[in-house]
Amino acid sequence: MRYGRIATPEGMCFCVIEGEGEDPAQLTARQIEGTPFTEPAFTGKEWPLSEVRVLAPMLPSKIVAIGRNYADHVAEVFKKSAESLPPTLFIKPPTAVIGPEQPIRIPDFATNVEFEGELALVIGRPCKNVAADQWRQVVRGYTIVNDVSSRDLQFSDGQWARAKGIDTFCPLGPWIETDLDAIDVEDLPIKAHLTHEGSTQIKQDSNSQQMIMSIGEIIEFITASMTLLPGDVICTGSPAGTEEMVPGDVIEVEIPGLGRLRNPVARA
Amino acid sequence: MRYGRIATPEGMCFCVIEGEGEDPAQLTARQIEGTPFTEPAFTGKEWPLSEVRVLAPMLPSKIVAIGRNYADHVAEVFKKSAESLPPTLFIKPPTAVIGPEQPIRIPDFATNVEFEGELALVIGRPCKNVAADQWRQVVRGYTIVNDVSSRDLQFSDGQWARAKGIDTFCPLGPWIETDLDAIDVEDLPIKAHLTHEGSTQIKQDSNSQQMIMSIGEIIEFITASMTLLPGDVICTGSPAGTEEMVPGDVIEVEIPGLGRLRNPVARA
Repeated sequence: MRYGRIATPEGMCFCVIEGEGEDPAQLTARQIEGTPFTEPAFTGKEWPLSEVRVLAPMLPSKIVAIGRNYADHVAEVFKKSAESLPPTLFIKPPTAVIGPEQPIRIPDFATNVEFEGELALVIGRPCKNVAADQWRQVVRGYTIVNDVSSRDLQFSDGQWARAKGIDTFCPLGPWIETDLDAIDVEDLPIKAHLTHEGSTQIKQDSNSQQMIMSIGEIIEFITASMTLLPGDVICTGSPAGTEEMVPGDVIEVEIPGLGRLRNPVARA
Repeated sequence: MRYGRIATPEGMCFCVIEGEGEDPAQLTARQIEGTPFTEPAFTGKEWPLSEVRVLAPMLPSKIVAIGRNYADHVAEVFKKSAESLPPTLFIKPPTAVIGPEQPIRIPDFATNVEFEGELALVIGRPCKNVAADQWRQVVRGYTIVNDVSSRDLQFSDGQWARAKGIDTFCPLGPWIETDLDAIDVEDLPIKAHLTHEGSTQIKQDSNSQQMIMSIGEIIEFITASMTLLPGDVICTGSPAGTEEMVPGDVIEVEIPGLGRLRNPVARA
């Protein structure tokens, strides 16, 4: 099932998104009581998805990300082998989250800002010390994240919190797919399309097969240290192809079954 | 005014802490309705502070920390000058927060775990782009934080999120002092006392005068990038004297006017 969060003239609410395919014009948002963590109770209100504003599907208490989880991305950013620079954890603040179509706003001091299209996991229950093969017990569903990063700040600061934590630097959505069998996360295409000066080019064109740490290994690694809570978001790492975005561009991350996460780029 | 959060047989609540000095036996916890962000409405219930369990005074939506903000600590940890390694931002997850007297629990893989006693700021209102000289408009009060850090993980991971983000690695409290004039934050002694094998020694003995970035500069630096929300906690950096703790030890961070943040150390 697909869960989303929308703004209607009546306010914000969670909804179930129904219909075939991924074109918002063909999808319906059916309002639910409560949250995506329980069986949906429908209120009876519904809207064509294309007629409401789609928000980030979750407001996480924390966003834990794996860096350097694709060897080709390690090579392009760090100029080193993945063997010499293994995956590492970092945290993005909740205030960085925006939904689809909201602008990524780049402040003057954040130079060389790149997109990073990634598969994201949404946690479904409080958990600690989860064994890799038990990860499906704690993941509520999948969505898309764009781990926007100022490469210059990333290297000058050393720590990545600021480079990746600026307001609007965490586009998330458009929905959470909770049918874990609907998505083959071990063979999942991940693409990013950048529109610059009117021309759209595919920049990232990879597959989750290329992950160094698998989803189970990521969950085990994080929960050995940190308790995860319902709604927490895990970013599983970016494949190669990341590139600078400038104001006026549009970036769209696409994962089959999870839709398209599209954001314009603007000055802060 | 001092605000705290306590657990009584009737449940958890915020309270105002009244009385002279910093000895819990001489202080009274008066239950309030609501939170520390508004004028207190007293319920009429009160307890001697020494007879209730004192919790972390706030559950922040995010914890933003300044690393390398004392030159002597930069020298002892990084073996470099503060000029060559300027202050940098990092984030601790909310799930790391514990209150006074709760054990810091060290997992096997987190070796060389050190205390870092620090002054913490609690944010009082949503804010962005705060000028340094306006910081008092957005800070609700002061408390103490212990930025517990596995030095080995800090260096092996490169990123500090795991080394400093393990569950229980963020002791916070015992209370929030909201009278900003009651504390001279530009001349504030910061001490840490470590009890090891029955012997207590003073390990950190510094003063906020030694900060490289002032409180105003820290607030301006963070809010240039990130919106801060009420309850968010800012860790202002650790002075020198940090040292390894092992299970069985007790660590107590002391700041005059803010009390003592005391935590035993145990195995996870």
